[in-house]
Amino acid sequence: MNDNFNAAPHRRYNILTGEWVLVSPHRTKRPWQGKKEETSKPEMIAHDPNCYLCATNTRINGEINPDYKNTFVFSNDFGALLPDSLDFKEDNGLLKAEGETGICKVICFSPNHSLTLPDMEVSDIEKVITTWQEEYKELGAKPEINHVQIFENKGATMGCSNPHPHGQIWAQKSIPNEVIKKTEKQKEYFQKHGKSLLTAYIEQELKENERIVSQNDSFVSLVPFWAVWPYEVMIVPKNHRKSISELTDKEKLDYAEQLKVVTQKYDKLFDTSFPYSSGIHQSPTNGEYPEWHFHMSFYPPLLRSATVKKFMVGYEMFGMPQRDITAELAAKSLREL
Amino acid sequence: MNDNFNAAPHRRYNILTGEWVLVSPHRTKRPWQGKKEETSKPEMIAHDPNCYLCATNTRINGEINPDYKNTFVFSNDFGALLPDSLDFKEDNGLLKAEGETGICKVICFSPNHSLTLPDMEVSDIEKVITTWQEEYKELGAKPEINHVQIFENKGATMGCSNPHPHGQIWAQKSIPNEVIKKTEKQKEYFQKHGKSLLTAYIEQELKENERIVSQNDSFVSLVPFWAVWPYEVMIVPKNHRKSISELTDKEKLDYAEQLKVVTQKYDKLFDTSFPYSSGIHQSPTNGEYPEWHFHMSFYPPLLRSATVKKFMVGYEMFGMPQRDITAELAAKSLREL
Ligand SMILES: O=P(O)(O)O[C@H]1O[C@H](CO)[C@@H](O)[C@H](O)[C@H]1O
Ligand SMILES: O=P(O)(O)O[C@H]1O[C@H](CO)[C@@H](O)[C@H](O)[C@H]1O
Repeated sequence: MNDNFNAAPHRRYNILTGEWVLVSPHRTKRPWQGKKEETSKPEMIAHDPNCYLCATNTRINGEINPDYKNTFVFSNDFGALLPDSLDFKEDNGLLKAEGETGICKVICFSPNHSLTLPDMEVSDIEKVITTWQEEYKELGAKPEINHVQIFENKGATMGCSNPHPHGQIWAQKSIPNEVIKKTEKQKEYFQKHGKSLLTAYIEQELKENERIVSQNDSFVSLVPFWAVWPYEVMIVPKNHRKSISELTDKEKLDYAEQLKVVTQKYDKLFDTSFPYSSGIHQSPTNGEYPEWHFHMSFYPPLLRSATVKKFMVGYEMFGMPQRDITAELAAKSLREL
Repeated sequence: MNDNFNAAPHRRYNILTGEWVLVSPHRTKRPWQGKKEETSKPEMIAHDPNCYLCATNTRINGEINPDYKNTFVFSNDFGALLPDSLDFKEDNGLLKAEGETGICKVICFSPNHSLTLPDMEVSDIEKVITTWQEEYKELGAKPEINHVQIFENKGATMGCSNPHPHGQIWAQKSIPNEVIKKTEKQKEYFQKHGKSLLTAYIEQELKENERIVSQNDSFVSLVPFWAVWPYEVMIVPKNHRKSISELTDKEKLDYAEQLKVVTQKYDKLFDTSFPYSSGIHQSPTNGEYPEWHFHMSFYPPLLRSATVKKFMVGYEMFGMPQRDITAELAAKSLREL
């Protein structure tokens, strides 16, 4: 590793988005007198009569949840996107807007209210992946859906209003900003080198062995060189897979295993149910994207303890993201747990 | 106004960054069971012996603050950027990093610990602007500084660890991501039309009169068409000014007045000391940027009340920003206060 990384402030380039992050390794010494997060108490009961995600309970719109045994998917009762909303276009050069349609779904990972991903059996995490695959395929096949965003907000700090283990899918007509950036960069590389950008990147990461958190036959979990969030992790298939629908059975098992390993390490890091937003970036569904190499990222806000998070405010909003610990140190802490 | 804006989910284009925001006007009806923010209690004392920003107190590094009467500027004792840190470059195509130098400063707006910007006299806010001008000029004149970011984080929710009225400046060698995007878009427009993008934009906004919050002779405060944060506001000079250093005396007074008006409206909106990050985007300091039209933006997180904020998580991190109320409704609420 370049010794300067831990010695001097520097910026690092994100090859997937083309944007930079400011790294200030000396800044961890800063005393923190600001806001403390509340730590979340673990849920004790497997079925909460007041939870609208638990099996057999009634949701706000009057529907009754089935007595589901593994995963359960339904359309979000307050979706930000609606399937049949008005299509319109306004463009006078300065004010540009267009109607956006889509489908928002909620995926319960388990009927057990008290679990989170790291507590689940690998075989049950596999069932979550199967559900993601089915949704990605089914939604992506619709002519009016061009992009399927699978994500999870975990913990109150991440705007999650219900501890029941669940994630979301927002599928829509247009391709979101972040995905456009990553498509461009991956395409550039693929056209020039005939292999995926992430194939080359993880080859180098596996050789350098400085930012790897965990791996198995088909997946590697690492803190990306350009990580923004303190303990950001990316889970990447070793073989070039454009989306989760291309996984073999063995790969699916290995993916589930890495999901468990990473989230377990997170919970151990500060001895708390670790909050994060995670998301899967993969090929849009409106055509062929041979350059896309799917990956799942975790953006966790905690910085120093269960109660002290990194604030992405002021400078980060107006300038660029800034982080205090290096990706290498974060990877080391996670790896050694 | 286009009636569809309040009727259907849509996306809007940010002419300054080239990015989109998803607007879901129907989503305000969603019940909120999630995290509540703590409201900040107003500070009661004008001088707090435990505050490291109050006059005559000792800071963590042993320095004693002067008995300042208006503003007071010092170098951040825990700056993310350092003036003399190592310069290095690493680039193998996939791992790209370079040493970054800079200067981080803290600006106390007033010796009075219990004030915030909206409580201050317009003439005292003018002195804050004068200090910003001096710092922008002085820092910008250094050959090793190419960009000067002035900003304020207000409130514990925005990572501010001290209620004493203060802001920050991070000045650095490279141009941050956000500023690069805005430079490109403004340049494109300026080269094509021979006037600044924001000149044309505010002309149209003043004509439509739908998103204006307040104005005086030289400044207009509005909720931009592409606003991301619920009550985001942009303060823009009516005359094309590349930076705050180009303001006439009259313009400076008018700017101070709008700063007071906007922040006062904020405090009234939910009857609380309104948290936000604000920042000034203006011409970088490493050359001529005839296209730049300076503006100050406020990014406030509160959505529905003093305790319910908008979370930019999951979908917003992986896809694109999403908002619930339209810019037009937000502007109306602020305007009518
Ligand atoms: O420098 P402060 O006020 O201690 O810190 C605050 O503002 C900085 C600049 O926006 C951020 O990097 C920090 O995360 C935030 O807590
Ligand atoms: O849909 P939820 O879980 O109620 O809401 C949460 O996730 C959404 C998608 O990331 C965000 O837009 C909301 O701000 C957040 O509170």
